Amino acid sequence: MAKKNQKLVAEITSMHEDFAKWYTDVVKKAELISYTSVKGCMVIRPYGYAIWENIQRILDKMFKETGHENVNMPMFIPESLLQKEKDHVEGFAPEVAWVTYGGNEKLEERLCVRPTSETLFCEHYADIVHSYRDLPKLYNQWVSVVRWEKTTRPFLRSREFLWQEGHTIHATAEEAIEETERMLHIYADFCENSLAMPVIQGMKTDSDKFAGAISTYCIEALMHDGKALQAGTSHYFGDGFAKAFDITYTDKDNQQQYPHQTSWGVTIRLIGAIIMTHGDDSGLVLPPDVAPIQAVIVPAAQHKPGVLEKARELLQQLETAGIRAKLDDSDNSSGWKFAQYEMKGVPVRVEIGPRDIENGQCVLVPRVGGEKRIVPLDTSLGEAVKMMLQEVRDNMYQKALENREAHTYSCTTLDEITKTLEEKGDGFVKAMWCGDEACEDKVKELTSVGSRCIPDVQEQLSDVCICCGKPAKKMLYWGKAY
Amino acid sequence: MAKKNQKLVAEITSMHEDFAKWYTDVVKKAELISYTSVKGCMVIRPYGYAIWENIQRILDKMFKETGHENVNMPMFIPESLLQKEKDHVEGFAPEVAWVTYGGNEKLEERLCVRPTSETLFCEHYADIVHSYRDLPKLYNQWVSVVRWEKTTRPFLRSREFLWQEGHTIHATAEEAIEETERMLHIYADFCENSLAMPVIQGMKTDSDKFAGAISTYCIEALMHDGKALQAGTSHYFGDGFAKAFDITYTDKDNQQQYPHQTSWGVTIRLIGAIIMTHGDDSGLVLPPDVAPIQAVIVPAAQHKPGVLEKARELLQQLETAGIRAKLDDSDNSSGWKFAQYEMKGVPVRVEIGPRDIENGQCVLVPRVGGEKRIVPLDTSLGEAVKMMLQEVRDNMYQKALENREAHTYSCTTLDEITKTLEEKGDGFVKAMWCGDEACEDKVKELTSVGSRCIPDVQEQLSDVCICCGKPAKKMLYWGKAY
Repeated sequence: MAKKNQKLVAEITSMHEDFAKWYTDVVKKAELISYTSVKGCMVIRPYGYAIWENIQRILDKMFKETGHENVNMPMFIPESLLQKEKDHVEGFAPEVAWVTYGGNEKLEERLCVRPTSETLFCEHYADIVHSYRDLPKLYNQWVSVVRWEKTTRPFLRSREFLWQEGHTIHATAEEAIEETERMLHIYADFCENSLAMPVIQGMKTDSDKFAGAISTYCIEALMHDGKALQAGTSHYFGDGFAKAFDITYTDKDNQQQYPHQTSWGVTIRLIGAIIMTHGDDSGLVLPPDVAPIQAVIVPAAQHKPGVLEKARELLQQLETAGIRAKLDDSDNSSGWKFAQYEMKGVPVRVEIGPRDIENGQCVLVPRVGGEKRIVPLDTSLGEAVKMMLQEVRDNMYQKALENREAHTYSCTTLDEITKTLEEKGDGFVKAMWCGDEACEDKVKELTSVGSRCIPDVQEQLSDVCICCGKPAKKMLYWGKAY
Repeated sequence: MAKKNQKLVAEITSMHEDFAKWYTDVVKKAELISYTSVKGCMVIRPYGYAIWENIQRILDKMFKETGHENVNMPMFIPESLLQKEKDHVEGFAPEVAWVTYGGNEKLEERLCVRPTSETLFCEHYADIVHSYRDLPKLYNQWVSVVRWEKTTRPFLRSREFLWQEGHTIHATAEEAIEETERMLHIYADFCENSLAMPVIQGMKTDSDKFAGAISTYCIEALMHDGKALQAGTSHYFGDGFAKAFDITYTDKDNQQQYPHQTSWGVTIRLIGAIIMTHGDDSGLVLPPDVAPIQAVIVPAAQHKPGVLEKARELLQQLETAGIRAKLDDSDNSSGWKFAQYEMKGVPVRVEIGPRDIENGQCVLVPRVGGEKRIVPLDTSLGEAVKMMLQEVRDNMYQKALENREAHTYSCTTLDEITKTLEEKGDGFVKAMWCGDEACEDKVKELTSVGSRCIPDVQEQLSDVCICCGKPAKKMLYWGKAY
């Protein structure tokens, strides 16, 4: 039993030995994905897809509660349509997949597989928006998009990836900016509450904005290896797209106006973020809100009379309480099962055996951060598990926050950045900036950390730019990025 | 008020005048879809997409309750992979879209955008199925697929369409056949109960099978114009794909075996089926289970004190009862609102005005089949509306069934088919068949109706084939198809 257990665990490389290999081991051994014969495209297996379904369910509810409606746009964009907004096409054309044949016939115009759908939404808005009465339109879609990346990694960067893309159109700039910020806050709330992942909220610098945007808001998280991950973005477009696509509306005073637009998205890379924020050398650690199995019941000596019956009773109690629960009554050993569900990141394990039944109890074991707990069988198991799920989430958040704080460094010179990262390992660097793109480039060249975002919460670490010494305008977060 | 009302209704062509134009009017005026600049690809607008979300929610629950898990496969299939199963590639290669460039680089191998995903699932199964312990795998995915059709119509035939595709793999032929039939029954239950649409269950003849299948099961429905619509299919593949893709497993006796496979799917054409089964000259008629709005509250004289307050109370009552409800408190006239929600097919209208409040009542009006009903305000509005929703569904089903029965004709000669269709209009023709493909072709050539399915419920209408006079093997349903 112990041997089998050891073997299983041994299959995962230690994260301290080789973080990249640890990551790949986890996504494969936990059966989140499989590779396919198409480079950069993956099979998302049931356990991985169930996490995405939970993410979808929670976010979709948040979107609908704030007045958004789902739609579905075509996956193809004619080349001429993609080219209508100059900055946008420059950003995306080099990395799109082109359809050139339909059956045996060469197409008159190439179609790209959508890398993002601003152009399609704009074409539609030009069709349906005419009067101030038609505004706002608050649309979203859950689809996959394609970007022909050179290097790919499961969840983090793939040629096809699942995401949601919100696209809204408003009468005024104020409304559109308010929407852009609202959606960023929704993303941040979701990441912090449901994924137990602390995020920095802020804006991208101009050099890092979305192609065609006036401003790009973002949330940034710190992974366990000290690298930064962009977890969601929200873009304000002003009326640039409206002008390029000739979208106008008649206002209350019967004047023609250009409306203002936004778009915002999160992708399945959130699963990569979960893995690298919370995972450990035993495998996945899943936030309870999105875990496909929140509690697994593992019976001991299940061949003994009464054990499986009691285990099934507990299962029913948990399901009735609305907990996603599973009973593993397979003939694998308990030790194997322990290791298996640890690797799969199940937040709570419920143990029940002959001695427990004699003592009128079962045992709850949290996947991380906390002690096992003995629960009398005559109290509400559902409530006890729910409480432990909440504790698991809180512990996960706390640990991730402590890790981020331990790896966030305030620096005032470039040398200090280099030395700090060498001594303490990769992380976020907070440093002042003059606002000049040349300084951003130079910092990256000399220290290897690039600008991640201009955080909403500013600190005055110094009066001068860390690079050029001129007056500082903003504090930036810098880091190495996924 | 009456004028505005008339104008709106007048915008829909009468179905008896021009059924095809009536259909197009309905999908556009009810804001289900918009056209795009890509031929055969459409925008599915919020009201249309909400119907699809309801279809998804109900079916997905039925799939999960029968042990199926969702996955996500890539949208691209390399040409060499598509070609592995001979019949399959012959069926699909002529109608796929080909990606030939990624960014500026020509691909070494062309990729087609999936027209269906058997080949991708097979590649994955070859990767993960090794032992009898790995079986069965019961997978499904909700995605869009692409088939480069020449002629297209919204929902019924488009180049890109939304669907679900189930793909399962089993140790034995019996298990796979059982699965094929189980899923057909689930589709039939869903169509009859949730869509109020009666369907014929049966099998396709060999000439009409899915490319690569041993047998194709189907459900067929009769539209209001007397044409047949294939509403769902379920395919049994035997071990043909397993052999082509080299999928084997070790059985309990340590022998290598080929597993047996199925696939099954329904598409967004179900929305087309809903429109053409239930719609009328006032517009859509939506089955309550999938209606985005199940009950709309239309206040009368809403400027008068107390009316809107009471209307909001009613809205809350309905929402608390789990009914998808909407209060239209816009400044449009009541007449306009009546016509608008009739056109949108909302199953129940709730009217509340000053006189109703005085009398302590509100009025429920079903979209079809039934009288308006006065409901005292001190009883449970939720229960009253639920009861009416059930009645609407039952009436819709009954009416559709009667229509189908009135347009189902038993014929024993080809002449009789032609004459009957001329006299009574298009519909299902029941007629005997010898089992020979040549006779199928000849019947179609001479009468314009093609074979739709071999129904599970057989009748012995005659002893001989309607075409060649040889002994009959089966009764077929024949019809003109969408």
